[in-house]
Formats: sequence, C-alpha cells, structure tokens
Amino acid sequence: MEIRLALIGFGGVNRAFAEILRDRGPDLAAKGHHFKICAVCDQRFGEVVVQGGVDLCRLTETTSDPGAFASLVGGGTSCDVFSILARSGADVAVEATYSNRVDGEPALSHCRAALELGMHVVTTNKGPVGFAGHELTAIAAKHNRSFRFEGTVMSGTPVIRLANQCLAGNPITGFRGVLNGTANYVLGRIEDGLSMSASIAEAQALGYAEANPDADLKGWDVALKVTILANMVMGGSLVPENVACAGIDELTEDKIRNAIHEGLRWKLVGEANRSPDGTIIASVSPQLLPTDDPLYGVSGAANAVTFHTELLSAVTVSGPGAGKVETAYAILSDLLSLK
Amino acid sequence: MEIRLALIGFGGVNRAFAEILRDRGPDLAAKGHHFKICAVCDQRFGEVVVQGGVDLCRLTETTSDPGAFASLVGGGTSCDVFSILARSGADVAVEATYSNRVDGEPALSHCRAALELGMHVVTTNKGPVGFAGHELTAIAAKHNRSFRFEGTVMSGTPVIRLANQCLAGNPITGFRGVLNGTANYVLGRIEDGLSMSASIAEAQALGYAEANPDADLKGWDVALKVTILANMVMGGSLVPENVACAGIDELTEDKIRNAIHEGLRWKLVGEANRSPDGTIIASVSPQLLPTDDPLYGVSGAANAVTFHTELLSAVTVSGPGAGKVETAYAILSDLLSLK
Repeated sequence: MEIRLALIGFGGVNRAFAEILRDRGPDLAAKGHHFKICAVCDQRFGEVVVQGGVDLCRLTETTSDPGAFASLVGGGTSCDVFSILARSGADVAVEATYSNRVDGEPALSHCRAALELGMHVVTTNKGPVGFAGHELTAIAAKHNRSFRFEGTVMSGTPVIRLANQCLAGNPITGFRGVLNGTANYVLGRIEDGLSMSASIAEAQALGYAEANPDADLKGWDVALKVTILANMVMGGSLVPENVACAGIDELTEDKIRNAIHEGLRWKLVGEANRSPDGTIIASVSPQLLPTDDPLYGVSGAANAVTFHTELLSAVTVSGPGAGKVETAYAILSDLLSLK
Repeated sequence: MEIRLALIGFGGVNRAFAEILRDRGPDLAAKGHHFKICAVCDQRFGEVVVQGGVDLCRLTETTSDPGAFASLVGGGTSCDVFSILARSGADVAVEATYSNRVDGEPALSHCRAALELGMHVVTTNKGPVGFAGHELTAIAAKHNRSFRFEGTVMSGTPVIRLANQCLAGNPITGFRGVLNGTANYVLGRIEDGLSMSASIAEAQALGYAEANPDADLKGWDVALKVTILANMVMGGSLVPENVACAGIDELTEDKIRNAIHEGLRWKLVGEANRSPDGTIIASVSPQLLPTDDPLYGVSGAANAVTFHTELLSAVTVSGPGAGKVETAYAILSDLLSLK
C-alpha cells in the first residue's frame, strides 16, 4: 500500500530523509513499503505539491537559495504550512521544522493541525513531544492515527521504541542517560587538556554546538529529552520546568581533570525515577561516574540511556546521539512502524 | 482475547515464567493480555492438562520431586510431549526443555511438532534456532503462525527484536558481541588476580558455569548464538560448524593481567560480518579491546552486542546475559509480540 507524505520543513533532517527515500526506495518497495512525497514546504525554500509524487532527484538537488522550490514542477515561493497540509492529501505529515524553548512552537501547531486533519504525524522536534506529548497522542488516537517521535531522543538510535515495544510487560522504574553529544564532547576534550572555552569553540567548528551553546551546556536540551522519556515511556506528566537542571558550566577544568586521575569521569546525566508514591522525580546534573557504570564509556558525540526495569534490571542502549542521516533514519523507522 | 499456552519443560525458566504470570496476570489482563496455561509437561515432574487453566499458585508451589505434578488437579506422572501438544488445545507452545550440541534435539522436534499442529512457538532453547531457525520460521509462516526466540541470545535483553523491528529499514552489515556471561566473569576474576581454575570454580559455585564448563570456555555457546544472530537478523544460512571458534582457554593468566596494566582487556568476542560478495563470515575468539570499544566495559555476567548498520553506524545494547527471571521475561515479551 502506498503511503503519501507531506514534509514540513526541508532543513538537514528532511533533506537527508528525502535522500534516503531516493536511494533506498526500490529496496523498501521490494519489501512492500511504498512511500511517496506529495508535498514539501519550507519557510526558506517555498513549497512544492505534486499529487503523483515529487521528483526526488530534482527535490534533493535543489540549492539552499531562498525560493529554491520555485524551480520544481508544482513548486512556488510561498509557504503556508496549514494550507499545504490541507491540500497535500497526505497520509503522514513529517514534521522537522524547529521549536522554541517556551512552548514548542511553531512545530507543536504543525503537529496538532496535521493530526486534526486525520494524518499520522512523525516528528523529530523535541518541542511538541516535551510540551504536549500526551495531548498529541490523544488527538492521534481520536482519529485512529499514530503520533511518532523516535528522532527526538538520540536521533535514530531506537530508544523510544526499545522502551515502549521491546520492553513491553516489563515496567520501567527509572532511567539514566548521557543524552547530549555536545556536552559530552566538551567534557572529553577538557579531559584531553583543552580549556572549556577552546573545547566549546572546537565543538562549534565541528557543527556539534550552536553559536549560543547554552542549551547544550546548561542542560536545557537534556531536560527536554528527560521530560519526553519520563512522560512517553514512564507515563509521567512532567513539563520541562519540573526537571531540576544543572549543566556542565558548573564544573571547572580542574575538577574534570582531577576525576580522570582517580579513574572517574564527569558526565552530564539526565535521569528520572518513580517514587514510592508513584510520582516521577527528574533531574539533569553533572555526575561523577566510576568505570563500571554503563554510562562511563560513552565518549565523544555518542549517547546512551540505561533503563531500570522490574524484570531485567538494567538494559542500556547506546548509539549516535545526533546527525542528519541518523535523525532522518528515525523518520523512516517511525514510518515503518505505522500500522 | 485469551491466549492458551502449553509449557514444554518446567525447569527454572518455565517455572519463573509461570510465577510471572501468577504475579502479573491481573496487570497484563488490565492491558488486554489474557494468558492461560492449559498444559504443562516435564520429563521429571510429569504432566498436567486443564482446559480451563492450570491453577498457577498450585503449579508454582509444586516441589522438585519426581512425579510432583501427580498432586495437581488434572495431573499425572507420564510425560509424552507430542501427545500433550495434541491434547492441549493451546494457541502457543512455550518450549524450554534442553537441546544437545549435535542437532538441537529434543527441543527441535518439540518446536517442529507444535508448529505443524498450527501453534505459535516461543522458545528459549538455542538448539532449534541455531540448527533449523529458517526451517521452523517457514513452517510457522505456512500455518500463518509465528516462531519467536528472543530468549536464545542475552536472555530477555531485547537483541533479536531490536535488530529485526527497531532497526527495520537499516541493513545490518555485521555485529560484535560479548555473549557468554560465564567466560566474561572468569576473565574478570583472573584480572582481579585469581587463577583460571579458581575463577572457574567460583563461577560454578555461583551457578554461572556448568559442571563441565567447556561450552562456555571453549566458545561453543557463543558460536551457537552467533549462528542464531547471523541467520535470523542478517539473513545468513550458517550452521554452527561454520563459525571459526576459539575460547578463553587459549589465553594465559599472565596475558590477561598484562593487558589490564596496558589499559586493555581481553574479551571473548563473537562476531559476523557480511563480505562484499554477500556471504557472512562468523567467528568466536578472545580479542584485546581498547577502552573506547563499546564492549570494553561489559563486566561480570553482563552481555552486550554492537550492531553495525548502514544508516546509524554502531548501536549497542547491553543487559543481563542470563538468569531464570530474565529469560522467562523473554517468553513474555515474545508472547506480547504475537499478532
């Protein structure tokens, strides 16, 4: 059965996803998975709507110039997300725009609108899930559709699906994770002898850190991911402000290097645990880990999360924490999981 | 919908599984999962068949005396697996007897018979999967049933399901794993300063190692698990003899301890990789790992496997490698995955 997609946003992630479909479409079709992109819109590039399917070679060859979609068959320079969703006739909206730290907009409104139109929604945006994950899941359920968001935590590394599907029937009592690659990379470079500021500059040069690295260094990014996991795999009802948050900017270079000499490592750990009264307590903080902690060896831009469970004790999954292709794969994996 | 189970074998694993159903049945039922054990047989204890469901409290309280099932309503001292399967009326056979190293019997015949009767089969026995995984899967498909075996590798830690479901659409090019807890425990104790023989004796006293520890120490157990993963998650067609196999008995205590002083650790690694011509090359061997290897930190009786994939590079899952409750959970997770 053909599944028709509307791509909302065409930054690095959705562009990488279109490239995956372009390159792997035949292999996926051979296994019974037929995906067709029938609409794309992006504030910078414009829009393109082709009911029979956008030409993926032409789409992925568009430049990053403003209005670049005008050169495509069915393309134009305007971009009204809500109008495109309504006109697209898509089965699934693939949301990969951006969301602010205050209320998850504009991505949240895009997801809500698509779900209310009766589409499935797949997003890689943390905002909608962190601020309104249960609400969006409920809207999806009302329309007998799915809301999927594997790419919001650890890119395509299967964290959400591991917890919700593979660990079904095995209640999760808590989790601890190294969930920010930039902070982890900076810690590692300080261990190597660089200063905090030089390490941050290097992370920025490598494209890991943003021009303003506060969200990574102060723990805000991890707090949002902890909120997502606490709510969507442990059934919590937290908002990001409920997560007590301290970042690696509270550490000193000496503290970080002294730890290494004692065989320990500082890691920025996000965690949540169910209290005896059923409530979930969540936090982000730098923690000093011994060598036998499953998170001790998580190096560079890698991420990992350990789930504590009733029947298996600790299960840890580690893998890439970011990356365009890796996050684009999360979209594909979400699409393949749709019933 | 009620799912009726026939338990083949009532050793530690199926007894732990019956305890899980006894304790968690109401919670599972509240989520729509209704399991009923309608038949159990075991060479030592005898058989019990109750169409309305065996009393789980009475069943799990039976002693380990020969013929113990005779005390149960519907119980007797005989045990003809094939007759029980035919009489049980079960939807699923849960196979947890034993299998030999030569051809996977008698578990293989139990699985085949149940599938031919049109039942789903869940097994924790490596033999049937390692020797005839594709054949049994094909029989299941012919009857529109499932053959599941999560518990054959790393107990209930979701390895098979991670690879086959969570990594769908992302071809696996190879894997490397620490897949034997006994060998790993022995290596760790030798690192601590014990002799090889004292470490083995300790592992036996703790119940990790069998009276004859050859299968663990010579790598045979890992070779069977490598065969299972190579065939069932990479589509290979290996038999265990195709896996080049060396064990930790080829290491010396000095070699193991010298490595630690250089910041390295010996691990017994099972691996398989797809060659450019499409064939799969598999092996088991002691390998010297640096600290940044994801398998370096896998300590004691823990296990881990790293999957190398086309779209996510390396994804590692670690967790318990053995244990009665942990393996019993694999059965529950397989049952919950049945369509």
